Amino acid sequence: MTGNETADGAEKRRFVEVAKRLIAERGDLVSRAAVATGASVSRARIEAVFPAEADLLDAIVEQWFDEPVAIMEEVLASDLLANRKMYEFFARRFVLNRQRYRADPAAFKVYCDLGTAQFDRLDSYIDLGDHYLCELIAQAQADGAFEGLAIDQALSLINQMVLPYTLAEVLTYMDERLSEEKLGRIVDTIFAGLSAANGGAQGVTGLRAA
Amino acid sequence: MTGNETADGAEKRRFVEVAKRLIAERGDLVSRAAVATGASVSRARIEAVFPAEADLLDAIVEQWFDEPVAIMEEVLASDLLANRKMYEFFARRFVLNRQRYRADPAAFKVYCDLGTAQFDRLDSYIDLGDHYLCELIAQAQADGAFEGLAIDQALSLINQMVLPYTLAEVLTYMDERLSEEKLGRIVDTIFAGLSAANGGAQGVTGLRAA
Repeated sequence: MTGNETADGAEKRRFVEVAKRLIAERGDLVSRAAVATGASVSRARIEAVFPAEADLLDAIVEQWFDEPVAIMEEVLASDLLANRKMYEFFARRFVLNRQRYRADPAAFKVYCDLGTAQFDRLDSYIDLGDHYLCELIAQAQADGAFEGLAIDQALSLINQMVLPYTLAEVLTYMDERLSEEKLGRIVDTIFAGLSAANGGAQGVTGLRAA
Repeated sequence: MTGNETADGAEKRRFVEVAKRLIAERGDLVSRAAVATGASVSRARIEAVFPAEADLLDAIVEQWFDEPVAIMEEVLASDLLANRKMYEFFARRFVLNRQRYRADPAAFKVYCDLGTAQFDRLDSYIDLGDHYLCELIAQAQADGAFEGLAIDQALSLINQMVLPYTLAEVLTYMDERLSEEKLGRIVDTIFAGLSAANGGAQGVTGLRAA
């Protein structure tokens, strides 16, 4: 990395910090123009860093995911058993989101709406999470869990069963119902009960059975 | 019920039908004034049926839940095994919501936003669903499932694990990832794995373990 790139990176981070401060103050998204004013720089200087408005949004989203990505990597690199690792994988990011939500519910809602509106921007983060979860599933299967399921089947089912703990906006309407203890029981349930065995819940006659 | 009440009920239903048609046409909520115009009646006549704007919204929400409430009652009254019953309890309402979503995604989004904005109005429906799910859990526990868990613990954990299939708006961004087959596997996982046994996922050292 050259000295110039480092300086550019520092300036970009500073602009994103200004954008986050403005989002917290206003409870709404901000434009490059507002960030330029807030950072006391020229419009041209902001546009050199963010050629389009979308680049500013991208940078905000990217920084939002810095910590959760670090958490995933730290958990994956640990030597925990697969069930402990999967719990930490979800719980640490849930606790981070809950801290962010409780620190500023209005700003958190803006980031959730930004995520919903710019769902495509989340793709690379979601893909990375799925990639790491597949590694965890493979480790768990090597230890005998999730018998008979293909990794992508287990991936989808696990993602769905822990959705309240990964979909950030769920915090905005059921924070008080979510807890690390419940997430622990859900991960225990997944390890104790998820397999390709047909337990018969769906039945053979589909929705007409009752 | 007197003849007058029946006539009032029919008029109320007609106004709600007009409101739903306008919501589908506009992709937005409607006022009593718009419904009066759409139904070719006077403002006074609408206000006799809906004294406040909130009463119109209440009536729309109430009608939205007519079918799912009937589904829950039909499933509860059936003689299926507990796991089959729980699957049908969630799956039939999920399939209904998916039909509604696919028939008119824009109108469906309006109803989701209405539900989010008027969350209190959903309370009696959510309470009724919880009441019935508690009955299902008691039946399942009588058959040996969910060992050691209090009914309200099992209730909360099950509600969380099937959230993608009950939270209507999830359809608007992951319809293609949801299926009756996956819901069946989730219910199988719940019956095979949910208990008060501590499987150790959460660990004793909390989030500092890794």
